[in-house]
Amino acid sequence: MSSRKELANAIRALAMDAVEAAKSGHPGMPMGMADIAEVLWNDFLRHNPGNPKWANRDRFVLSNGHGSMLIYALLHLTGYDLPLAELKNFRQLHSKTAGHPEYSETPGVETTTGPLGQGLANAVGMALAEKVLAARFNREGFEIVDHNTYVFLGDGCLMEGISHEAASLAGTLKLGKLVAVWDDNGISIDGEVDGWFTDDTPARFEAYGWNVVRDIDGHDPEAVSQAIRLGLEESDKPTLICAKTVIGFGAPNKQGKESSHGAPLGKDEVAAARARLGWEHAEFVIPDAVYEAWDAKEKGGERESAWNALFASYAKAHPELAKEFERRQLGDLPSGFAAAAEAWIEKLQVEGPAVASRKASQMALDALGPLLPELIGGSADLAGSNLTLWKGSKNVIGNDASANYIYYGVREFGMSAIANGLALHGGFIPYDATFLVFSDYARNAVRMSALIPTRAIHVYTHDSIGLGEDGPTHQPVEHLASLRYIPNNHVWRPCDAVESATSWKRAIERANGPSCLIFSRQTLVHQPRNAAQLADIGRGGYVLSDPPGARFDAILIATGSEVEIAMQAMRILADQGVAARVVSMPCTNVFDTQPVEYREGVLPSWCRRRVAVEAGVTDFWRKYVGLDGDVVGIDTFGASAPADALYQHFGITAEEVVERVKALP
Amino acid sequence: MSSRKELANAIRALAMDAVEAAKSGHPGMPMGMADIAEVLWNDFLRHNPGNPKWANRDRFVLSNGHGSMLIYALLHLTGYDLPLAELKNFRQLHSKTAGHPEYSETPGVETTTGPLGQGLANAVGMALAEKVLAARFNREGFEIVDHNTYVFLGDGCLMEGISHEAASLAGTLKLGKLVAVWDDNGISIDGEVDGWFTDDTPARFEAYGWNVVRDIDGHDPEAVSQAIRLGLEESDKPTLICAKTVIGFGAPNKQGKESSHGAPLGKDEVAAARARLGWEHAEFVIPDAVYEAWDAKEKGGERESAWNALFASYAKAHPELAKEFERRQLGDLPSGFAAAAEAWIEKLQVEGPAVASRKASQMALDALGPLLPELIGGSADLAGSNLTLWKGSKNVIGNDASANYIYYGVREFGMSAIANGLALHGGFIPYDATFLVFSDYARNAVRMSALIPTRAIHVYTHDSIGLGEDGPTHQPVEHLASLRYIPNNHVWRPCDAVESATSWKRAIERANGPSCLIFSRQTLVHQPRNAAQLADIGRGGYVLSDPPGARFDAILIATGSEVEIAMQAMRILADQGVAARVVSMPCTNVFDTQPVEYREGVLPSWCRRRVAVEAGVTDFWRKYVGLDGDVVGIDTFGASAPADALYQHFGITAEEVVERVKALP
Repeated sequence: MSSRKELANAIRALAMDAVEAAKSGHPGMPMGMADIAEVLWNDFLRHNPGNPKWANRDRFVLSNGHGSMLIYALLHLTGYDLPLAELKNFRQLHSKTAGHPEYSETPGVETTTGPLGQGLANAVGMALAEKVLAARFNREGFEIVDHNTYVFLGDGCLMEGISHEAASLAGTLKLGKLVAVWDDNGISIDGEVDGWFTDDTPARFEAYGWNVVRDIDGHDPEAVSQAIRLGLEESDKPTLICAKTVIGFGAPNKQGKESSHGAPLGKDEVAAARARLGWEHAEFVIPDAVYEAWDAKEKGGERESAWNALFASYAKAHPELAKEFERRQLGDLPSGFAAAAEAWIEKLQVEGPAVASRKASQMALDALGPLLPELIGGSADLAGSNLTLWKGSKNVIGNDASANYIYYGVREFGMSAIANGLALHGGFIPYDATFLVFSDYARNAVRMSALIPTRAIHVYTHDSIGLGEDGPTHQPVEHLASLRYIPNNHVWRPCDAVESATSWKRAIERANGPSCLIFSRQTLVHQPRNAAQLADIGRGGYVLSDPPGARFDAILIATGSEVEIAMQAMRILADQGVAARVVSMPCTNVFDTQPVEYREGVLPSWCRRRVAVEAGVTDFWRKYVGLDGDVVGIDTFGASAPADALYQHFGITAEEVVERVKALP
Repeated sequence: MSSRKELANAIRALAMDAVEAAKSGHPGMPMGMADIAEVLWNDFLRHNPGNPKWANRDRFVLSNGHGSMLIYALLHLTGYDLPLAELKNFRQLHSKTAGHPEYSETPGVETTTGPLGQGLANAVGMALAEKVLAARFNREGFEIVDHNTYVFLGDGCLMEGISHEAASLAGTLKLGKLVAVWDDNGISIDGEVDGWFTDDTPARFEAYGWNVVRDIDGHDPEAVSQAIRLGLEESDKPTLICAKTVIGFGAPNKQGKESSHGAPLGKDEVAAARARLGWEHAEFVIPDAVYEAWDAKEKGGERESAWNALFASYAKAHPELAKEFERRQLGDLPSGFAAAAEAWIEKLQVEGPAVASRKASQMALDALGPLLPELIGGSADLAGSNLTLWKGSKNVIGNDASANYIYYGVREFGMSAIANGLALHGGFIPYDATFLVFSDYARNAVRMSALIPTRAIHVYTHDSIGLGEDGPTHQPVEHLASLRYIPNNHVWRPCDAVESATSWKRAIERANGPSCLIFSRQTLVHQPRNAAQLADIGRGGYVLSDPPGARFDAILIATGSEVEIAMQAMRILADQGVAARVVSMPCTNVFDTQPVEYREGVLPSWCRRRVAVEAGVTDFWRKYVGLDGDVVGIDTFGASAPADALYQHFGITAEEVVERVKALP
């Protein structure tokens, strides 16, 4: 029987060896947290290495993701599909062992981490998902949703502002099944943290309403075990375990120092560490006894089998609920969704409401929300401005079976990373919201939505100088272009209620990545469309208007509130004998993925007389208008004034578009 | 003699009237904080309305900037150059009373606020600036730098993550002259905050090492006065005053409710509030007695005169120091700076070191830093990676006269907003640093650097997939383009040590806005240049290489690490009979401001065979290559692998550039 120390040392040895082989990486954290991880994974974590997607598994998040070798070692040792060859190939192209843990690369990794603090927020989202899903699906005698969420975090996570946002909200939401372990090793990259991090962290988390287990020796398995038990016993508050550890534990010359953090220890130090730890095995060699002690496949299989049996009984007692649970776990939409959404869009096209697109978004939620119990929304304290509340919204705090709305408070970054956690957990399609300009605050979480990827829907209203008097601090200029440039992100900026509803439909149907839905504060005109045009909205760009005979001399390209400006310009130009096509381009990201024939049909190469118009930075549009065309937009900050005055002042007008078209050769 | 209530009611009346006239705005906060502001401004704030730029004034920041009418009323009433006509013109085009306070628009506004939480961080920067400047310039008997920094903040600021970063660091730095007043009105936009904000805020700030004055009645002038005194007496810790207030105080039907927060009260409610408050004057009418009681011009003039006398004696006793103080207040560079920097750059051109540009950046700091005592740097816990420490770096914690380095901890957003505060205070040119990908975390503060604007220098290293094994969470792809799109921002991505030094020079010399300096992790080749080319680096883009006779068939455009790839491609093409020009484009923002003749000289219109190469999103470069050219770059996320393997894998190679050139018509 292997001792606990021996089991923990297996992690240390693998971490040292893999980092050494890669000639890069972070040995310090895995060596420091090995004892804690050993206790948690061997004695507490309810998972099944044979099925990383088992619905009721405990979730484990490594918020201090640079210590990726910790989780790779744990996954390998407990029996996930992560063979030793992958560990030997740490940080190499096409390996399953990237420098930081990646959800889409490695079985058993619950989220992509590395950008500090976001793992904690993801974990908050997962714990919230568990709570809301349990309220929805559990029935007397059938606790089919009942798992814990564990997260490891370091000093870096705690210094980041997002830790404040996420922890504060977790306290308010009373996420009692969330257990966080702080790797209190007193070291960050610049050295001993007392020069820049002097918080009384336990007191800080108590101020958030957390249960805090103070001052645990992170190398004493009994103390760790006791602390985790205290965390699990507390059902009304999230728990922070403050575990003192030695970074690089076991490396005689580098432990306790920043030199063990982010670079290979070096051959000599690795040898010395092996001696110090009493780990006599060659590099990448784990004795069979150690493997056996770690192996969680059988126990995991039994756990899942027991749950499967429970679920089978549940399915007999509550067949509809069970079917619904399975559907939501798979992320499948209700069978009638597409047809209902299309009917709604067609109805809007007929009725032609002239509303702000933020209002159209709320109308879409009212129309589609009742079909989608998996939709879980919220706003960063702007519900009445973002119009994210719909008729079926119910506060998650009530713990009601139909709870689906989160009052996130003024926490844009935390909100968006929590939304990623909700999506990753399974069972939910999250949407969140703020003003477009404050997507800046959340920006790296939006990037993570795209990178992980998650089906997160980020709603951004007040999308231009059209928001008016609040002025340049609140007026996005560069944001549309910047969000479109995030790989795998879909940015929709609809021009009327019909395009707004279509954007919502496309975002909900998109399983493999996020969508940003960009809506106006101000009222937008309804645009006429035939059935083919209606169908083409979903392609991201389409011909909204052609002159008689479809013979044109110029193309106007526009999005959102500027589509009507393009339409007005088209009419003025027609009066002056210039025939112009108008292209509405609600989503450049989707348009760019259309077959070349389709794109050529919309923007034929022969026509270089092209003018784009959008109330944002102009350079973005050069990809469509080239050097021969022109762009009407805004390349400076906005100003504080009524919206109409601003459009005039900055020259985003039909008259300006007309002038620019006529000035082209 | 006007009563205190009457003086405070003048603020309330102006706020109500201006918001009513504008038909938009936020009356609730000014009405709620009027009593606090009255006490602070009349009894404590040492300022001079006649000279908003007096060096030793107290700084006042409105972090809850939506309550802009509070500060406009204060500035107007105390005698700043902000006549009543401006208040009547609240939120209109070309007024000095924008929707949110703007530094560049209104005399007496110390920073632009509105994006929540950043004002607090700006104030932390100002308080830190005061402390470091005092250590540098004060002498026995001459406390020429000795002022307080006050900041008002609301629940929204406290929910934002940046409040954690800024407050935590302020505690560590023991900024005893910082006094923050929390407008504890229990209301945010979505309603009563207890559904989403349940922190024990006093305990939280005590955990940061702050002096906390709890539970003050924000409508009791004596209590407010006592609290401020307690704050001023504490010299070792920043102070948070927790002031209970009623939002919209005085509006009988809307006070205490979110309905008073962000919309006009309406004619009837304004009338009812006037009655309730006993304010019987017509709209925008302030009685003379009230004006007289508020008027701070005389007292302010005396204050400044006394300081001027002190400074005159100081100048006699310490003439060199006094001259240096004045120079730094003006933001003038030392007279020898430009020549010394040019000499350094010329030396580099001759010596041609092949180093990573992050190393070249450190070399530039070592060369130029000794000339620039106003330079104050730091990194978000990546000093050894960003290479922001230079030979003259000295930790500000030591409170040494030459202190110039801040260990910011892992706080990118707080860091960047603190840098804005340092710059706004005067006397400093701040630089901060993190990995380029984590500019995301700081993004809105970078935007604010450009909008305010501040001479802040943001250093971003590890600028592409060239960082290698850390993988896609750490590899910027969209960041260069996104930063370039922020109006008034200058983004430099130098290709070797010479361009790196030039970038530093340009950033330091740029008084009216920020610069982002983008540096590589990996070693870069030195490029040969003649004197004219050397001089043209500063123009943002220039011809680095022309074929013999300057007759070329194609243009290659590149930045940073990809310049050498373009040079290799040029050589291969030459072997194949294709003559190509190579343009190095370290700063598109500056290049775009060059005269058209210059730009045409670099990128002549007749040549449409253009290929840009940059390890980032390709669409950005369409502005230079148009629809006829091509771009070699990366439009997906990166991967975890050694840098060279990644460049091969993603096809950012000289061979690829050659192929693309040859494929062009």
